[in-house]
Amino acid sequence: MTDFLRRAADLDAADSLAAFASEFHVPEGVIYLDGNSLGLMPRHVPARIAEVATGEWAEGLIRSWTSAGWFTLPMTVGDRIAPLIGAAVGDVAVGDSTSVNLFKGLAAALHLRPGRRVILADAANFPTDSYMAQGLAALVPGVTVRYVEPGQAAADALADDVAVLLLSHVDYRTAQVQDMAAVTAAAHARGALVLWDLSHTTGAVHCDLTAADADMAVGCTYKYLNGGPGAPAFMWVHPRFARDVQQPLAGWMGHAAPFQFTRDYAPAEGARRLVCGTPQVLSLSALDAALAIWARVDRAALFAKSRAMTSFFIEAVETSCARHGLALVGPRDPAQRGSHVSFDYAHGFEVVQALIARGVIGDFRAPSAMRFGFAPLYLSFTQVAQAVEHLRDVLDTRAWDDDRFRTRAAVT
Amino acid sequence: MTDFLRRAADLDAADSLAAFASEFHVPEGVIYLDGNSLGLMPRHVPARIAEVATGEWAEGLIRSWTSAGWFTLPMTVGDRIAPLIGAAVGDVAVGDSTSVNLFKGLAAALHLRPGRRVILADAANFPTDSYMAQGLAALVPGVTVRYVEPGQAAADALADDVAVLLLSHVDYRTAQVQDMAAVTAAAHARGALVLWDLSHTTGAVHCDLTAADADMAVGCTYKYLNGGPGAPAFMWVHPRFARDVQQPLAGWMGHAAPFQFTRDYAPAEGARRLVCGTPQVLSLSALDAALAIWARVDRAALFAKSRAMTSFFIEAVETSCARHGLALVGPRDPAQRGSHVSFDYAHGFEVVQALIARGVIGDFRAPSAMRFGFAPLYLSFTQVAQAVEHLRDVLDTRAWDDDRFRTRAAVT
Repeated sequence: MTDFLRRAADLDAADSLAAFASEFHVPEGVIYLDGNSLGLMPRHVPARIAEVATGEWAEGLIRSWTSAGWFTLPMTVGDRIAPLIGAAVGDVAVGDSTSVNLFKGLAAALHLRPGRRVILADAANFPTDSYMAQGLAALVPGVTVRYVEPGQAAADALADDVAVLLLSHVDYRTAQVQDMAAVTAAAHARGALVLWDLSHTTGAVHCDLTAADADMAVGCTYKYLNGGPGAPAFMWVHPRFARDVQQPLAGWMGHAAPFQFTRDYAPAEGARRLVCGTPQVLSLSALDAALAIWARVDRAALFAKSRAMTSFFIEAVETSCARHGLALVGPRDPAQRGSHVSFDYAHGFEVVQALIARGVIGDFRAPSAMRFGFAPLYLSFTQVAQAVEHLRDVLDTRAWDDDRFRTRAAVT
Repeated sequence: MTDFLRRAADLDAADSLAAFASEFHVPEGVIYLDGNSLGLMPRHVPARIAEVATGEWAEGLIRSWTSAGWFTLPMTVGDRIAPLIGAAVGDVAVGDSTSVNLFKGLAAALHLRPGRRVILADAANFPTDSYMAQGLAALVPGVTVRYVEPGQAAADALADDVAVLLLSHVDYRTAQVQDMAAVTAAAHARGALVLWDLSHTTGAVHCDLTAADADMAVGCTYKYLNGGPGAPAFMWVHPRFARDVQQPLAGWMGHAAPFQFTRDYAPAEGARRLVCGTPQVLSLSALDAALAIWARVDRAALFAKSRAMTSFFIEAVETSCARHGLALVGPRDPAQRGSHVSFDYAHGFEVVQALIARGVIGDFRAPSAMRFGFAPLYLSFTQVAQAVEHLRDVLDTRAWDDDRFRTRAAVT
C-alpha cells in the first residue's frame, strides 16, 4: 500500500459524508471522476421515475397537473435548490436548459439596463454561454458581445456601456472560483449587472447569492446535483428585480393566469415568470427525486471535503507522476478552486482514453487538458488514490501510446 | 343497447386499428377523451425509461453520449416524426418546448425577411403562441405583433410588412383545419413566411408540409404522439432554408463542432442547428420509445378513423342531448375538422367536472367550451358512445348541478 492509499484510508475513516456513497450506483470496476459532467444515479431515482410514469402519467393522466403537482413542479424543485445557492425559497425556477436560461437572463438584464447595449462575457466561460450571448446580439440590433480576455480580470473589463457581465462562478476548465461578492460590487459600481453561471458550483462549492448581493444566476443540475442526463436547469433573479424582470421567452407556464387563455401575456408574480413552456415532467421528476438527498447533507462538510479531495489529488499526482511533466491548470490555493482539477499534458487525450479503458473515467477538454472531477457527495479518498495509481501506471508504462486511444469521436 | 352503441360495435369490428388499444394503459373505469391534451401511456415505455436510467445513465454514465446515441437523439427522434408531417428524414429536430421552438421559428423568420417587422398571429392560436410572439416583439425594437381577428381569414390579413404568419393547423378550441397549401401560397404571394403550429395535428390529422410547400413548423409530442407529460417538442424548417436559417437560441448542441469549444458560434448543417442546449434525455428517450409504434400505423386509416369518430360523436350528442341546447363549436364538415370536438354550454365547466367524476375525462376551455378529444390510435367507437350516454345522463339528471363541480382550480 502506498503512502497515499494509507492516507486516503484515514481520510475516509474521518469523512462524515462517507455514508452517502451507498445511495449511488457505481458501475462495477469504475472510479468515476466525471461527476462534474454527469453525476451518478441515486439508487432511489428509477423507482420514482417508474411511479411518475405508471402512476402519475398512466393512471392520473391530465388530472396529475394538479393532483400530482406537475404544474408547481418548476417552483417546488427550485425550492430544493435554493438553500444550495443562498437563495430564498420561492425565488428559484427550474426548467429548460442552462443555455435557454442564459438567454432569458441576458435579455432580462438588457431590459433592466436600457441605456446599455454591451454583454461582457468571460472568454473562459463554457462555450454555450458565449454562443447564447452571440445569438441574442445577432437578434437585437445594437447589442454587442465583448469579452473578458484570458488573463484579464473581469472588473478591469467593465465599462459604462456594459449592461451585464456573464461569468462562471467556477471555471469549467481551470476550476478557478470567482469572488462573487467582489465582482458583483465592482459591476454594480459601474452600473452593470452580473449573470452568474453556477453549473460547476452547485452541489460542490460554497455559494451564497444573497450574501454576495448577486443579481441573477443560472445553473446545471446534471453535474453535482445528479439529476440525470440533460436534467432541467435552474434560474434565479434577486427578489429586488421581482416586479421589473422581464424575459422574452414568455411562455404560457410563466403567465399570471395560464388557464384564462387571454391573448396578452401578463407575467406571473416573482420567479414563476422565468418559466416558459410546458415542463418535461419525467426529467423534472427525476431531478426532484435526486434533490431529496440534499436536505440531509451538511454543506460545510461537503465544501470542505471538496477542497481536501482536490488538494489530495494534486499532491498525489504531482508526487507520483512527477517525472512526466504534467502541468496543473488552475489555482493551487484550495479556497480559489472548484471541485475539479485539470492537468495539461501533450498526450492528454490518449491518457484519458487509456484511463477510461481501465474504468477510471475522467474527461478531456481541448486542446490538452485532462480534467478530473471530484463529487464530494459520493467519492472516497481511496478511489482518488487508486485513480492516481492508474494514472501513474498509464504514464510510466506508456499504456496510452496505443492506436485504440487515438480516435477522436464527435463526443469525448 | 342504444342505436349508437350498436353502431359503435359495428364500427369497432371494422376498425383496422383496433388492436393498437391494447398497447396503451387505460385506468380502470376511465373513458379518456383528453388524448389531445396528454396522450395515454404506451405500455412499453416504463421499461424503456428504466433501461435508460439504470443502463444508459447509471452504467454507461458519460460514455452514453456516444455509445447510447444521446448526442444524436434530437435528430433520430425527429426522424420518427418526419413521416407523420410530410417532412424528409434529417429535417426534424426534437427538443425544448413548443413555446421555445415557436420563438426560434419566429426569430428565424424575421431574419429571413429582413425588411419586414410584423408577426401576424392568429388570435385563435393557443395563447402561448401569442405570448412568444409578444416576448420576441418586446425584445427586438421595431418588431410588432398584429392579429388575424376572429372571423377574418388569415389570407385577408396579410400585408407587405408581414414577415411571418403564425397559424395553428388545427385550432385548439374549434378543431378547424387550415388549408395549409392555400394559406402558404397566399402568404408567399405577399412575400411572407408561415410558421405552422402542428400541436393538434400530429398523430391524428393529415399533414404534408412538403406537398404544401410550407416554410416552418413546430409541434407538441405529448398529445396524440403519447410522448409523456411535457415531452419535448419538434421543429421543422423547409430544406430550402437549410443554409440561411439562423435562430437566436444558439446553444452548443446546435454548433457545428460542439466539442471543439470554440468561442464563436457556427451553426451545424441543416436541422441540427435548431437544437439549443443539452437535451433532457429521460423525457426524450420516453418519447423515442413512444414513437416506435408509429412505424406500424396505417396513417390513411388513422386519419379516416379520426374523421369518422368525431362525426359519430357529434351525431350522437346532437341526437341524445338534443333538448339541452349544446352548440357545436367548429366545423361540421369532417374534412375541415381536427380530432377533437367542442360544444358550448353555459354550465360546461360543471358538466366536464361531473363527467370526470364518472371517469369520462374531457376538458374545459374558457369561457364555456366542453372539449372532447378523440385519439384515433387507441379509442374505440364503443367508448365514444358510452361517453355520450354519460353526457346525456349528466344533462338529463342535472348531475352537474352540485357544489362539488363548481370549484375552479388553477389548472383544470
